[in-house]
Amino acid sequence: MRKQRPLILVSNDDGIFSNGIRALAEVASTFGDVMIVAPDRQQSAVGHAITVSTPLRAQKTMVAGIFTGHAVNGTPADCIKLAHNQLMDRKPDLVVSGINHGSNAGINILYSGTVSAATEGTILGYPSLAVSCTDFSEDADLSGCREAAHKVIDYILKNGVDRGVTFNLNAPAGPLKGVRWARQGESRYVEEFEGRVDPYNRDYYWMTGKFEMLEQDGGSDIDMIEQGFASLTPIQYDLTSHKLLEKLSETVL
Amino acid sequence: MRKQRPLILVSNDDGIFSNGIRALAEVASTFGDVMIVAPDRQQSAVGHAITVSTPLRAQKTMVAGIFTGHAVNGTPADCIKLAHNQLMDRKPDLVVSGINHGSNAGINILYSGTVSAATEGTILGYPSLAVSCTDFSEDADLSGCREAAHKVIDYILKNGVDRGVTFNLNAPAGPLKGVRWARQGESRYVEEFEGRVDPYNRDYYWMTGKFEMLEQDGGSDIDMIEQGFASLTPIQYDLTSHKLLEKLSETVL
Repeated sequence: MRKQRPLILVSNDDGIFSNGIRALAEVASTFGDVMIVAPDRQQSAVGHAITVSTPLRAQKTMVAGIFTGHAVNGTPADCIKLAHNQLMDRKPDLVVSGINHGSNAGINILYSGTVSAATEGTILGYPSLAVSCTDFSEDADLSGCREAAHKVIDYILKNGVDRGVTFNLNAPAGPLKGVRWARQGESRYVEEFEGRVDPYNRDYYWMTGKFEMLEQDGGSDIDMIEQGFASLTPIQYDLTSHKLLEKLSETVL
Repeated sequence: MRKQRPLILVSNDDGIFSNGIRALAEVASTFGDVMIVAPDRQQSAVGHAITVSTPLRAQKTMVAGIFTGHAVNGTPADCIKLAHNQLMDRKPDLVVSGINHGSNAGINILYSGTVSAATEGTILGYPSLAVSCTDFSEDADLSGCREAAHKVIDYILKNGVDRGVTFNLNAPAGPLKGVRWARQGESRYVEEFEGRVDPYNRDYYWMTGKFEMLEQDGGSDIDMIEQGFASLTPIQYDLTSHKLLEKLSETVL
């Protein structure tokens, strides 16, 4: 009996009609069958939000004329949950999310809908990968991201991923210089808001924000990207600080 | 010169007019001055979402007739960012979020707006605490949560919290049996959607979901709560799986 081709579930947070998701679906399709379940519109910076107070709908659609897809009126995490529970006839061998238009390195991991889709895949027990291009532009050169994603998908399908761990890949625009393992860099945003006054003399605020590195010792995702490499970070959804927990465990409150 | 009273920033995800935030503000006010900056409506399950595509507004208001507050048309993380950047004259000594109506133990931590407000406080460099009552009911007996929150705030103001770490406190409704250190439990949701058909014959899905423990060895937050204790978990926003990163660091991709 012929072995079934791997089934790869593809999602993102930029919406089902972005360039990035088409690029990632194309890469995935060289390894197996592709199913796309993604938000019907831009869902950037939604983090790990899920939709509990309104019902979800999934509209069947074609992406780039060749991939079967469902456009969902929800968040990236919703898409993976709904695909897993309702939309897929067989379970995926891999969940990939992206290619995001914009970096998901450093503190951005926390706010990222792209990463949360992959994390949701991990929670549900599937090997999962998030892919981002550090260039925000919708028409950025994704050739290096595609090549990096190809390498990592190949690695995952051959070796698997430890339970509870998600792979987070970031690559600069343009040709690939190489993929480097890295930890999540310590970084933050500063001057995050621009205050304005509306025609009725009421204040309002636009979130803007300047990204700031808090450390630079060569080992972080942001360092790798600055050196022109793609960064690959294993991340986990067990947020426990086991080090501090051990230290405090004898403290009585 | 008299030492200034601590300033405590209070937020939540159930909205500025919930019972829980009033209870937490009352506890906080026994330690210092209180400022409330919270969503103007229910924002449950928004995770670490931030608002980038619409402007934010902050409406000055009184909570329970005694606390100065700002109601913000955004997420819990937005509230903390906006308070830090625009609304506060001096920086807070502590950020507290809650009391949430519903558990934020186990996998719920990932989806929680309450926890993300506290995490945002940590990212900005403030000692931060999330407080949740495991009973969903709006009129649950919060006496044990109040007492647990009082103990932990007292501990934090005296001892501080390590950089990068947030305290996540969950307590059952009713009197306090005690506070126990715990790690985030491995858990997940199953049967997450209820599919329906609308009057126009189109499918739609309500997220429902049954909480399921994946392990039970006595040391997790969920275990502690089941034994009637309040659980206190130090969590971190560095999501790197350092263990796996070390193991894989020699693997060439």
